[in-house]
Amino acid sequence: MAGMLLLRTALKRHLGICSSSASAGGILPPPIPGLLDGRARGRQLHDGVDVTQKAPLTTAPGRLPFSKLTQEDFDYFRRILPGRTVTDPDLLETYNVDWLKSVRGSSELLLRPQTTQEVSQILRYCNERNLAVNTQGGNTGLVGGSVPVYDEIILSTSLMNGVLSFDAVSGVLTCQAGCVLEHLSVYLEERDHIMPLDLGAKGSCHIGGNVATNAGGLRLLRYGSLHGNILGVEVVLADGQVLDCLSTLRKDNTGYDLKQLFIGSEGTLGIITAVSVLCPRKPKSVHVMFLGCETFEQLLKTFQLCRGMLGEILSAFEFLDSECMRLLNTHLKLGNPISDSPFYVVIETSGSDSRHDEEKLHNFLEEAMTSSLVTDGTLATEESKTKALWSLRERVTEALTHDGFTYKYDVSLPVETIYQLVTDIRAHLGGRAKSVVGYGHVGDGNLHLNITSPARDAGLLAAIEPFVYEWTSARRGSVSAEHGLGLKKRNYIYYSKPRSAVAVMAGIKDMLDPRGILNPYKTLPDRLP
Amino acid sequence: MAGMLLLRTALKRHLGICSSSASAGGILPPPIPGLLDGRARGRQLHDGVDVTQKAPLTTAPGRLPFSKLTQEDFDYFRRILPGRTVTDPDLLETYNVDWLKSVRGSSELLLRPQTTQEVSQILRYCNERNLAVNTQGGNTGLVGGSVPVYDEIILSTSLMNGVLSFDAVSGVLTCQAGCVLEHLSVYLEERDHIMPLDLGAKGSCHIGGNVATNAGGLRLLRYGSLHGNILGVEVVLADGQVLDCLSTLRKDNTGYDLKQLFIGSEGTLGIITAVSVLCPRKPKSVHVMFLGCETFEQLLKTFQLCRGMLGEILSAFEFLDSECMRLLNTHLKLGNPISDSPFYVVIETSGSDSRHDEEKLHNFLEEAMTSSLVTDGTLATEESKTKALWSLRERVTEALTHDGFTYKYDVSLPVETIYQLVTDIRAHLGGRAKSVVGYGHVGDGNLHLNITSPARDAGLLAAIEPFVYEWTSARRGSVSAEHGLGLKKRNYIYYSKPRSAVAVMAGIKDMLDPRGILNPYKTLPDRLP
Repeated sequence: MAGMLLLRTALKRHLGICSSSASAGGILPPPIPGLLDGRARGRQLHDGVDVTQKAPLTTAPGRLPFSKLTQEDFDYFRRILPGRTVTDPDLLETYNVDWLKSVRGSSELLLRPQTTQEVSQILRYCNERNLAVNTQGGNTGLVGGSVPVYDEIILSTSLMNGVLSFDAVSGVLTCQAGCVLEHLSVYLEERDHIMPLDLGAKGSCHIGGNVATNAGGLRLLRYGSLHGNILGVEVVLADGQVLDCLSTLRKDNTGYDLKQLFIGSEGTLGIITAVSVLCPRKPKSVHVMFLGCETFEQLLKTFQLCRGMLGEILSAFEFLDSECMRLLNTHLKLGNPISDSPFYVVIETSGSDSRHDEEKLHNFLEEAMTSSLVTDGTLATEESKTKALWSLRERVTEALTHDGFTYKYDVSLPVETIYQLVTDIRAHLGGRAKSVVGYGHVGDGNLHLNITSPARDAGLLAAIEPFVYEWTSARRGSVSAEHGLGLKKRNYIYYSKPRSAVAVMAGIKDMLDPRGILNPYKTLPDRLP
Repeated sequence: MAGMLLLRTALKRHLGICSSSASAGGILPPPIPGLLDGRARGRQLHDGVDVTQKAPLTTAPGRLPFSKLTQEDFDYFRRILPGRTVTDPDLLETYNVDWLKSVRGSSELLLRPQTTQEVSQILRYCNERNLAVNTQGGNTGLVGGSVPVYDEIILSTSLMNGVLSFDAVSGVLTCQAGCVLEHLSVYLEERDHIMPLDLGAKGSCHIGGNVATNAGGLRLLRYGSLHGNILGVEVVLADGQVLDCLSTLRKDNTGYDLKQLFIGSEGTLGIITAVSVLCPRKPKSVHVMFLGCETFEQLLKTFQLCRGMLGEILSAFEFLDSECMRLLNTHLKLGNPISDSPFYVVIETSGSDSRHDEEKLHNFLEEAMTSSLVTDGTLATEESKTKALWSLRERVTEALTHDGFTYKYDVSLPVETIYQLVTDIRAHLGGRAKSVVGYGHVGDGNLHLNITSPARDAGLLAAIEPFVYEWTSARRGSVSAEHGLGLKKRNYIYYSKPRSAVAVMAGIKDMLDPRGILNPYKTLPDRLP
């Protein structure tokens, strides 16, 4: 017990983090770390370059030979969706531009169906007329997947926002695709459950979009991916056919599990109109720790210790390096709540018994500190304090935007190697970059590598790419861990997927959407095998 | 605390279960409840009908026009697989017959490749020659999916049994498809991990077969389905092309998640040659409770209480009804460890701190008993006693085989309705059946409905079917919760899947296996939409 007392003295339970709160935020959510094309965002935030020109990004392929909208088309849609078509260019503006303001389409028509049958009617017509369609949820995507590239019709799911059912015994929620993630979270919390996913963009993003992009987020370590948590989807295929895979069953082995195809297909194979989700019980106790480690090796050992000693209550294991802390200090005036370390980890636990959880945490901390895996640490239970600790991890992106032009990469790698990429790129770049920082989800093997320079620097970019992609590819990593390919990353697919796999993907696309009207220019690369 | 004492008195911690141990078993595993076509099994077990005739079951469709093996074919395979082809009819016998002995093929050639390249070479040749191939793992499947129907070449994965890598930090295991599940479990336990699935057939079944059939099993409630736990697969396509989706990453959003297609496709879309699996840490403490409930409604309330109070340590919630207990008493002389109740539940917890787990269990039990949800109960910690309690759930199938000719159904349903099917079928059948029993996985909404009669009874069967399938279908249930369709259930698919879904499945099959050489006559129905 002497050890426990010593430990309690060592731990600074009352945080000294400055009171600077997270950015207020409007409709658009705060930045999510590591998600976006750093060049586009950096340009928008720091260089004042005009990205509002009407032409698509130079990376976009040429417009495919889809039909152009005629007056008859407009009349048809006005008839089937009375009062729910938008053609006013000013109103269309926010739907044509992604929230990073890095991609702009020039759609002249937004459709707002309320029912699956309306979506079916729209697609049947579009397929016959060879009109391209861009499905849009909350428009919070970061790879240019959620907005039109040219004049695609925008089909918004925003009016499809009804909860269809919730079963408190099984924890299965069924709802329309346009439900906002945060609204679902509130709905479930009132019923003693939570969504199995949580994202920075939760205030805007739609569950249909989450499923279509296979969103990762903050709860993946604990609850797993949407491929496990989504029990069913209802999808409208390109020809208007409704594919009813809206099962609410945990087990169903009657044929191929088709719903899986649509999870992460970015609206290119069908339009998700409803989903059913397996929702966990709301945890009764949540704790957050912020710890310092001397080396990344010790950080990984801490992770292993954590998995063993915290076991079933571990819900997040995130890290940032000392360069991130420097940027938090410098640009956001956030204080370091513990003594300076080369690496920091944020560990969250969620459990059903607060006293048990605290005991596990103390045992873990004692072991971690006596074995010198961890040099210092602090533990928070109150919500205001857990949020303050989380902000050290969550606001790194914001700090980076103040540091200069940012090149951002979101890769997943075998967990042992994730920090080696940061070390190697530092050595590779020498003194050419202003800052090279690494942070991310250790538990998921997901690194956010960010490199800043005072201004845009073609030479620096050439030194970074394809180095980063090749490095990742050589270790069988993923060049897009959680945010998909969309428009911006579609041509990088070969760094992570073999040609044979891309050929099968193209075959599936061709089978389900033979005219290619669904979210064209996205996900699949311009050059198919 | 008085309540706790009262509770401790009420609980019979030392079990009075008779010492009759589980059947000794050879290579073949003990029966898994509810998996099989009751008529076939019943016939084999009780009627003495000869199922060893060479012709396939009457339910099999006619032989498709595949090529017949020639001497050149035999020579070719002997050349590329020296010493690893089997043509001796006696040796082929166990590969031609499923372990239920309900389906018999007449293959004249068994191939035993060791590498992915050999599998590729085999399929390239077979595809060119239009030779059909049946892939076989441990041959423990229960729907006739694992054996040839006619003269398909049998490709056994049994020599592809190497562990390729294990990463103790991330818990990711990569291995060849022919690894026996139990061998992998032993390998992992030595490394402080467990497989995320566990089955009665673990001593024989191959991990490749588990993935190909999307096996459910006993750990699904806690760790979820293979769609979440399988991180990668390597597959050889019908034309011999190797599809390398053998990722070990938890996050990878680069294109469509193709591996999902092969999970549960029963060898009809490609041959799985290797898999990577996300493995949980080995729990430090395991407890098992056996409780009695007065009504199924109270049983469901107990499940809800469990989810709330045991939360993250709950790892199984199974049930059996009093009719099951009667059969266990009568046919296996297994004693009831608690007082008689209409319903019984087996609850398992797995956690990282035994003391915490026991405290949670006692709090739960106190609440369950004081609120009269549970009428009596017993708790076991020692392995011998937890096994004895588990055997009451696991040996119901065995007890049924002694009760008469058994009609077996394995359905999943919205959890509130699962027992209603048993009640309704009892009312529907009146006194025509000998026994009508229900048991299964409450946590997964998976009911095993079993009906016995003194002998085979066409009238009784006509009263059961299609009643059971229609009842299940009307509630959007699954007519095959965990064991696939294989040969036996392929034509029941429309009870659980709409025609549009089956049409997409057929399109995928056609795209990936245009000549249909992979496991023909399985999974997809004879009549396509």
